[in-house]
Amino acid sequence: MRTPIAVLLLMVATFAAGQAPPQLNLMPMPSRVQLGTGHLLINQSFSVAVSGYRDGTLERGVQRFVADLSHRTGMRLYSTAAKGVAATLVIQAQHGSESVEKLGEDESYELTISESGAKLTATNPLGILHGLQTFLQLVETSTDGFSIPAVTIKDQPRFAWRGLLIDMGRHYIPVDVLERNIDGMAAVKMNVLHLHLSDDEGFRVESKQFPKLHEMGSDGQYYTQGEIKTLVAYARDRGIRVMPEFDIPAHSRSWFVGYPELASTPGTYKIEPGGVYTVMDPTQERTYKFLDKFVDEMGKLFPDAYFHIGGDEVNGKPWDDNPKIQAFMHSHGLKNNQDLQAYFNHHLEKILSKHHKTMVGWDEILRPDLPKNIVVQSWRGQESLAAAAKQGFSGMLSFGYYLDLMWPASQHYAVDPMSGAAASLSPEEKNRILGGEACMWGEWISPEDMDSRIWPRTAAIAERLWSPQEVQDINSMYARLDEVSWRLEWLGLRHRSHEDPMLHRMAGVEDISALRSLADVVEPVKDYARFENVKGAWDFRAPLNRLIDVANPESETGRHFQSLVQKYIQSDYQDHDAEAQIRALLSTWRDNDSKLKPLIQQSFLLHEIAPLSEALSNVGSAGLAAMDYLDKSEASPGSWRAQQLAIADTAKAPQADLLLAVVQPVKQLIEATARHTTGTGPTHEGTVNPDNRVH
Amino acid sequence: MRTPIAVLLLMVATFAAGQAPPQLNLMPMPSRVQLGTGHLLINQSFSVAVSGYRDGTLERGVQRFVADLSHRTGMRLYSTAAKGVAATLVIQAQHGSESVEKLGEDESYELTISESGAKLTATNPLGILHGLQTFLQLVETSTDGFSIPAVTIKDQPRFAWRGLLIDMGRHYIPVDVLERNIDGMAAVKMNVLHLHLSDDEGFRVESKQFPKLHEMGSDGQYYTQGEIKTLVAYARDRGIRVMPEFDIPAHSRSWFVGYPELASTPGTYKIEPGGVYTVMDPTQERTYKFLDKFVDEMGKLFPDAYFHIGGDEVNGKPWDDNPKIQAFMHSHGLKNNQDLQAYFNHHLEKILSKHHKTMVGWDEILRPDLPKNIVVQSWRGQESLAAAAKQGFSGMLSFGYYLDLMWPASQHYAVDPMSGAAASLSPEEKNRILGGEACMWGEWISPEDMDSRIWPRTAAIAERLWSPQEVQDINSMYARLDEVSWRLEWLGLRHRSHEDPMLHRMAGVEDISALRSLADVVEPVKDYARFENVKGAWDFRAPLNRLIDVANPESETGRHFQSLVQKYIQSDYQDHDAEAQIRALLSTWRDNDSKLKPLIQQSFLLHEIAPLSEALSNVGSAGLAAMDYLDKSEASPGSWRAQQLAIADTAKAPQADLLLAVVQPVKQLIEATARHTTGTGPTHEGTVNPDNRVH
Repeated sequence: MRTPIAVLLLMVATFAAGQAPPQLNLMPMPSRVQLGTGHLLINQSFSVAVSGYRDGTLERGVQRFVADLSHRTGMRLYSTAAKGVAATLVIQAQHGSESVEKLGEDESYELTISESGAKLTATNPLGILHGLQTFLQLVETSTDGFSIPAVTIKDQPRFAWRGLLIDMGRHYIPVDVLERNIDGMAAVKMNVLHLHLSDDEGFRVESKQFPKLHEMGSDGQYYTQGEIKTLVAYARDRGIRVMPEFDIPAHSRSWFVGYPELASTPGTYKIEPGGVYTVMDPTQERTYKFLDKFVDEMGKLFPDAYFHIGGDEVNGKPWDDNPKIQAFMHSHGLKNNQDLQAYFNHHLEKILSKHHKTMVGWDEILRPDLPKNIVVQSWRGQESLAAAAKQGFSGMLSFGYYLDLMWPASQHYAVDPMSGAAASLSPEEKNRILGGEACMWGEWISPEDMDSRIWPRTAAIAERLWSPQEVQDINSMYARLDEVSWRLEWLGLRHRSHEDPMLHRMAGVEDISALRSLADVVEPVKDYARFENVKGAWDFRAPLNRLIDVANPESETGRHFQSLVQKYIQSDYQDHDAEAQIRALLSTWRDNDSKLKPLIQQSFLLHEIAPLSEALSNVGSAGLAAMDYLDKSEASPGSWRAQQLAIADTAKAPQADLLLAVVQPVKQLIEATARHTTGTGPTHEGTVNPDNRVH
Repeated sequence: MRTPIAVLLLMVATFAAGQAPPQLNLMPMPSRVQLGTGHLLINQSFSVAVSGYRDGTLERGVQRFVADLSHRTGMRLYSTAAKGVAATLVIQAQHGSESVEKLGEDESYELTISESGAKLTATNPLGILHGLQTFLQLVETSTDGFSIPAVTIKDQPRFAWRGLLIDMGRHYIPVDVLERNIDGMAAVKMNVLHLHLSDDEGFRVESKQFPKLHEMGSDGQYYTQGEIKTLVAYARDRGIRVMPEFDIPAHSRSWFVGYPELASTPGTYKIEPGGVYTVMDPTQERTYKFLDKFVDEMGKLFPDAYFHIGGDEVNGKPWDDNPKIQAFMHSHGLKNNQDLQAYFNHHLEKILSKHHKTMVGWDEILRPDLPKNIVVQSWRGQESLAAAAKQGFSGMLSFGYYLDLMWPASQHYAVDPMSGAAASLSPEEKNRILGGEACMWGEWISPEDMDSRIWPRTAAIAERLWSPQEVQDINSMYARLDEVSWRLEWLGLRHRSHEDPMLHRMAGVEDISALRSLADVVEPVKDYARFENVKGAWDFRAPLNRLIDVANPESETGRHFQSLVQKYIQSDYQDHDAEAQIRALLSTWRDNDSKLKPLIQQSFLLHEIAPLSEALSNVGSAGLAAMDYLDKSEASPGSWRAQQLAIADTAKAPQADLLLAVVQPVKQLIEATARHTTGTGPTHEGTVNPDNRVH
């Protein structure tokens, strides 16, 4: 059984009136779930029949579904090609989806499962693909085989745009890593892969028109046009659009290595940290001729209707410094650099339009005089999104979904595109808010650890964008996230399995259990703290081979420990099972430093974590001492508490760009030892913080 | 430090006279190693200079080398493009290698490392690539950074053909899985990837000439011609030839699905288990016209000079049963089916020759009248190889290197192409023995577990084919294999990291530690036992999702336990450290069944391992009881021993196609308790096996 009990207890999400709360491991949560009675058994005679419309997308989807189910259950299962009324699962789509997947196509499906069979219907194969993922998530392992609970699900997405941006400009990500991430996206019903294909540090697509873009604008790591075609087809088969982004006029140094004539500042350019900063020159006719040919080529390579031109973070200094550009601005009545960028975007939009593309850009592109069909992607927040909607522009949210900031899943989960300023929009304006995108910015990722930055947290964002707004229970989300996290590893993602090889490489010894224990309870520093700690200029060529590169953004052990401590305190210290687990963890941590020290000493790469390891042991000791007080129902002396809290506070400081994720619950334990103001233990002198006595 | 002490103690390999035994973690062992004094430090100022010949292969190889070193050390390191005398590592090749890599090209290199710098020279980039791998294996992590011991290595391969066959006919293996295996091959200096591209169960390459081959002859899983080109270029960049195999006239049902006219038996064919057996019809002109066009197309797609036509396991019954074929044989004076196959091969060889390809085939193709330039790949053994060599044919060995037989690395390691009948060949005949190939037959592999069947064992075969024949010490081999195994995981191979996700999927619960403990001490049944246990016909579509599919062919824990027991016994039971480790393992196993039982009960997929889990606990208890006798220097009663040995023998029986890899050492412990014939313990009645008293 896939621990459904725990999930059942935790699920308190609100649902459509009259419906029972589903007790199912589904993520994202469907919009309507009606539990029936009994189960549909899955055994050797399981079969699938496609009745009605069928095409290649649908058939390959069914084939993958059967392979997945077969792999999961360990049974040989076959997709039956024949139309059979006796099939266990009958699939029926009304018609095909668009040959190039379109924004806003019907993605809804209905899935009915009874003891005697299952039926999946949808308007088109996109809904069928989603329904099959739901079916797979419903499979339960049990003592006598596999089964699916009887259930009726009517489901459709809340938002039409549910994306994931991957930035391969800074670090090249091989195609197979992208493909496994597409599999992950499909598993949680996301539908847009946004490829940030160029930035200062690299241009990553083969251009036949302008070969110096990829040849000189990269370190040799780029996607061939053949690879892009394969990737787009792979995504299309899974109901996922692929939108390219070529970030201009800023973030474009890689273009200037091969084509310096496009830059606002004369000179030669290299792919290297530092170097001359410049932006594209929007005043030259040749810039637009170049872009026209470029959009023609790339627009054909990427069939999606949307084309992202970046447009963010333009520093106008190169424009200020160029007299020709200043003269141009003067003669064209362009008052400032914002006007010049608007001039650029206006021309660019015409080029895109000529090639049948709709322009997408970051907040900064927004100007009232641009055509209303453009889409604004907001890294600034719901206010910016609402302002755009009021002016008639469509938009989607990425503020709050930046995966590189290392936030816990709950923090991303709390961000809603329709909250804040967006909540008070008119219905018509609200329709312009298309959805959102999780953003995997690439400054600190490598193919080895990227999965661990994206998953499982992105599944929580996927739920925010798919499920009804009312689905907000954090405990339920985490219980289901833990399940989906394993499912994603089965699909080939490496957000868990990347750890051991990396730890071994760092330690250089066979037994890494002590290093693993530490790695399990640390998290990378949050927001932009890692950048702030870089000595000198950030260098994209830095090898990503420190403990911070292994550590998951959110420590599962830390979260588990936190909830054990809550449980223990809430039980008024009577929950002996929780107590035993807390003590076991604390003891492991207390004893860990002495085991880890030899590894730290003999490996250069581990030196930086020595203080962190000591801090963990100190916290373990402090926690155990607190448990002793609590166990004996004895109040601790105030001076002892002050001392222990000081130890804990020291342990909270970042070390090696890492944070210990278990300090806060230990502080709670220490503070809880004050509960008996007339304890039987010896009292000591020393100042006692009265706050600590309240609990 | 990368546990060099252990390796140092274990290294007793024989080397060229006058040389000190190297204390280095190299695999394969170089042919000559001369240790110097001191170390070369690797720090931020490390740089590489290519002096002399340079080309794309060499430059990309250096770029990968620097990236790997950078990743390992956590330091930003750059390949310097400029020719610099001050570079840490100077690389010098005399000229380029052939544009299409050729069998027998010079692969030698010399690597000299001193405290002040390193120099790597080779005739051509192939040697440079090998030397760079040696360099990477020499890197040691230490307390103050990274270093390489001063050393002079002169190295070249013993055999020119060091291959790995991967069979994707039975189960499709995606390109990225092949690519990571190519990385593994390059790391251990293998140089031929042999793709078994077609078999009864699937035809895996796009054919533009005959599209029904891949369209109807596969389940839709095949390599496009674009993918093949990419793969061949990827391998070429790493000094690896790619040889295609299309197995005919047998093993070719997949061809007949689209082109039944090629078969000896009229009818329609499907990709399915069972079904009509037939072979290609060698009596029709159209067969050869087809093959001529086919070889023309595939010969261009695969530029290698060698083309493998299979030729194995022809069952001539379809020929016997076809009157037209019988009439043909009669009119052409072909006395039997062997003659008919020879007739086929003769024609086929002419076609290959016309397209500038050299024929390679399995033992069965060997007939004296074939041209002497063909190559025989022997699955039958050194006798067959020697017989071929005597007739003037070249050959290579695969007997003894079948990875699907689940042998321990030591067993493969002991197989030498030049042993047995081959040892007594003349020098000229010996020259015809080109090397060998490890064979990863595909009946029971999936992309998920294939790496674990290939690695790390194939590294031992690679050493057999590269290193001097005298390199044979098994302890040294295993010590170095453990190191290289981790290195291969760093390269992206998943022979270790596949386990946890698979175990989780089977168990369906978060805590799989008890299942992991069992998985760590089991091995798949050996040779063809898994086939023998299949009920009904073997079905290539069976999902590979049992514990046997997770279990490594050779249990590292089992090997470790075995050596602990040897150490303990050899110390006359005085080695208390070994004793403690033995007791800890035995206790874990004794207690494991009670932890694992709940998981087994609730997961259908695990039911079959219940007896195995019980057996492990019984063995743990028996071993602990034996330790108690040994600890007290007390002889055990004969009846007790008989009873315990019976328990151990029961535990040796295969369960769920798995073997417990720790039974034999436990039996040794039990038998050792007989050592004091006049023990102080109570004596019991019962028969005592006198054999047990001898020890």
